[in-house]
Order: sequence, then structure tokens, then C-alpha cells
Amino acid sequence: MSSSSSLSSNSPCAACKFLRRKCQPECTFAPYFPPDQPQKFANVHKVFGASNVTKLLNELQPHQREDAVNSLAYEADMRLRDPVYGCVGVISLLQHQLRQLQMDLSCAKSELSKYQNLGGMCVQSLSTLRLSLCGIVRILRVKRV
Amino acid sequence: MSSSSSLSSNSPCAACKFLRRKCQPECTFAPYFPPDQPQKFANVHKVFGASNVTKLLNELQPHQREDAVNSLAYEADMRLRDPVYGCVGVISLLQHQLRQLQMDLSCAKSELSKYQNLGGMCVQSLSTLRLSLCGIVRILRVKRV
Repeated sequence: MSSSSSLSSNSPCAACKFLRRKCQPECTFAPYFPPDQPQKFANVHKVFGASNVTKLLNELQPHQREDAVNSLAYEADMRLRDPVYGCVGVISLLQHQLRQLQMDLSCAKSELSKYQNLGGMCVQSLSTLRLSLCGIVRILRVKRV
Repeated sequence: MSSSSSLSSNSPCAACKFLRRKCQPECTFAPYFPPDQPQKFANVHKVFGASNVTKLLNELQPHQREDAVNSLAYEADMRLRDPVYGCVGVISLLQHQLRQLQMDLSCAKSELSKYQNLGGMCVQSLSTLRLSLCGIVRILRVKRV
């Protein structure tokens, strides 16, 4: 979508506009930094630098580049929101939530196993009591006869 | 630790050694890029560029810089391992694991609630059967008298 929007417009891509250079038809950035998303390039450039991004994109297959640019844009955005931890802050938070959920799950499972054992005992007592009742009823019938 | 190891040694910090420059006493990188960790700076420089890292560190409080450098080093390492997704790949994986655990937990909880209801019914049936038994035993005693 980004590529079509950048190619369809005659204005330079967000990268060339930001770097004040002519946007050539073979521009590496144009397919991923459409003119209507100037902040996306500004962030990526501020955090990684245009030259590092160019190097990275040139080392990838064309079909991998859009995902790479979008992950760089996300990382850059996170770094600008949280200059100390960036994406690593998100990773720590997710790891903390995972540990919490794992503890909750193991608690629920141990609770469940208790109920399963209790259920078994309860069914056993019920059948024992039913048997006793049947026995008594049989004795009473015999006494009547 | 990294700061002490770099200050204690007379050799230039990993950053100045990599950039082939004299390591001054006020070097911004020295406390965070000790000479015994050359790869740490090489990765950060390859992904973010030394000048971007300097700008970022200068915008932070001194006590925030070590965490910032370590998070940048982690991000850089992840980007070099996975040039397409980097840290964002780790985030997607963790989010997938979280969704999976949340589903497992809700299954365990619904299973648990079923057992709790069954347990209640079972206890009720047991007490009813016990009452019937007591009733019959009382009748038998009266008949004997």
C-alpha cells in the first residue's frame, strides 16, 4: 500500500523530501516511505540514520524490505517514546506478564487436580452409600417374605 | 562494572579503539564500552551509528546512560541476528505466547468452575443419601422394640 501511494504521487518520497534531494525512480526509500508519512522517515533517520537503513535494506531481499522498514519504524518510535529502554522496555513488560500468567496457570492447574481427586472420592462414597441402601432394602424385603 | 573495568585499564575504550581515536578522560563511551567488549560497540555502531548514540546519551541523565547503552546493545544484537524483524520479532513471539497462555488459563478456569459446581451437587447427594440411611436405621430400631 505504501509503495503504491508513493509511486502514484509525483511528490518526492518522505525520505528524499526530508534529506532535500531529488527522488529518483530507483530510490531505495520511496516504496517504504510515502510522502504522506513524513514522521515515519524522520523517526527512523533520527534513531538509525538514513545511511545505516540504506545499507540494511540493500543487504535484504526486495520482498523482506517492507517488513524490515516497518520493524525499524516501530523500534525508532519506541526509542523516541522511551529513550532509555525503547523496545527492550516492551520486551521486559511482556516477559513480566508472561511470568505472571504462567504462575496463574500453574495455580489453576493445581486447584483443578485437587478438585479432580475430591470428585473421585465423592463418587466412590456415593456408590458405597448406594450399595448399603440396596443391601438394607433387600434385607427388609426378605424379612417381609 | 563496565565503567570500573574501562577506567581501571589504560587502553582506550572499545568505541575509541574501533573509531581509531584517542580516548579522552571525558570520553562519552568509555564508561559503557570497556576495551574487553569490542563486539558490543561494533554492533551498536553498525546498527545505530556512533553519532546517533552520542546524541542519545547526551540527552539522558548520567544515571540513565548505562541502561540506555545496554538496551541499544541488545537491540543491535537482535537486529544483526534477525535483520528483517530484530527486537520486533521477539515482541511478536512474546505476544503470541501471551495469547496462548491467556487461552490456556481461561480454559483451566472454566474447567475449574465446572468442577466447583459438580462438587456442590455431589456433596448434596451424599447428605441426602446419608439422611435416608439414618431414617431407615431409625425405623428398623423402632420395629425391634
